[in-house]
Amino acid sequence: MKLIYTGKTKDVYALDDGNYLLKFKDDVTGENGVFDPGANTVGLKIEGAGRAGLSLTKYFFEKLKQKGIPTHYIDANIEEAMMTVKPATMFGNGLEVICRYRAVGSFLRRYGMYAKEGQALDAFVEVTLKDDERQDPPISQDALHMLGILSADEYVVLKDLTKKISQIVKDELAKKGIELYDIKLEFGRAGEDRQIILIDEISGGNMRAYKNGNYIEPLQLEQLMLTD
Amino acid sequence: MKLIYTGKTKDVYALDDGNYLLKFKDDVTGENGVFDPGANTVGLKIEGAGRAGLSLTKYFFEKLKQKGIPTHYIDANIEEAMMTVKPATMFGNGLEVICRYRAVGSFLRRYGMYAKEGQALDAFVEVTLKDDERQDPPISQDALHMLGILSADEYVVLKDLTKKISQIVKDELAKKGIELYDIKLEFGRAGEDRQIILIDEISGGNMRAYKNGNYIEPLQLEQLMLTD
Repeated sequence: MKLIYTGKTKDVYALDDGNYLLKFKDDVTGENGVFDPGANTVGLKIEGAGRAGLSLTKYFFEKLKQKGIPTHYIDANIEEAMMTVKPATMFGNGLEVICRYRAVGSFLRRYGMYAKEGQALDAFVEVTLKDDERQDPPISQDALHMLGILSADEYVVLKDLTKKISQIVKDELAKKGIELYDIKLEFGRAGEDRQIILIDEISGGNMRAYKNGNYIEPLQLEQLMLTD
Repeated sequence: MKLIYTGKTKDVYALDDGNYLLKFKDDVTGENGVFDPGANTVGLKIEGAGRAGLSLTKYFFEKLKQKGIPTHYIDANIEEAMMTVKPATMFGNGLEVICRYRAVGSFLRRYGMYAKEGQALDAFVEVTLKDDERQDPPISQDALHMLGILSADEYVVLKDLTKKISQIVKDELAKKGIELYDIKLEFGRAGEDRQIILIDEISGGNMRAYKNGNYIEPLQLEQLMLTD
């Protein structure tokens, strides 16, 4: 197997059978030692973060499979912090699709004139470009289409899948008394018919979760979700 | 008449008959003495800028009236740099609607990963919030609807009017061999049926115009457009 990409929180290897292997690292995004799922820098290293992130990812991807949601997931080896996935191509150089249930983070920084911190939002979906240099700018359906990144039809599929997946995650968290504030997903095109599928991971590092009004760190979320 | 609002480039007075009077000032937006239609600060003062801006505004608003586009324009007194307009209410605390024919300015700063400077755009429409503190963030149709600023139906009307008005301005400029790169419009709701109408002004200060590859300053644009 061959290392083809070194990411902030994962390395990607190509397998001989055409699939890929994602190696989850113990690095998490944030700034100055504080976790922030919206940050573009690695803020801290936490022993076991990779395995914990993969455990929760495996849990959610298997749940999504049961519900008929298409994803790139094939298999996971928790001990080695490795996940085998199907090949998929990105939209442009990569998009992040965010679903928001409460106004926090960059939404509040942009729309604070009209929204109060923590205000309930109705599964609001928005897309941002993965572009560290330009601070991941939000981009509209029209701009995505015009710039050849995502067609108008694909946008509709993406938004619909995002709402369905986010609701599934929200419901799973709610079973443990945890509230999902927002979640960041990534999608790609797979196979000859360029089907839109969920890629990347679903772990504490992709979402903001709260219990009894207190923010839950990714590692703690993974513990709460995966222990009875 | 009573002063009710002091803007960066215009003052607004209430008239006894329910209409309003806009007094065009000689201040233009920009930074460090350089004109920039996207700037939130007054960059310089130019003698006669108010009258010139009003002259071009009168020219375009009368052209739009002929074409059946609803605007707030009633009458203009160029000598006094004053325009009489119908009352209209803003969307939230104010929106700017931008139509782009070439990739420059904030579009390029956001989407430079996918667009080259000066690249042709197909009458691309986007909306930004008037919010100096948050640098006029762009906002999507979904967010405008969710935050109660503009309904989904109103967005469609706004986008359609923006494309029509921008095309009329573009065609007028083209008659003088001038190319419109982008234009910034403002709209409001008027009357009991809350009809969406064009408000504010259409002058050099609202657009980027080029001739033979050279940028044309607002005052020069007004001269070029209004002299034979």
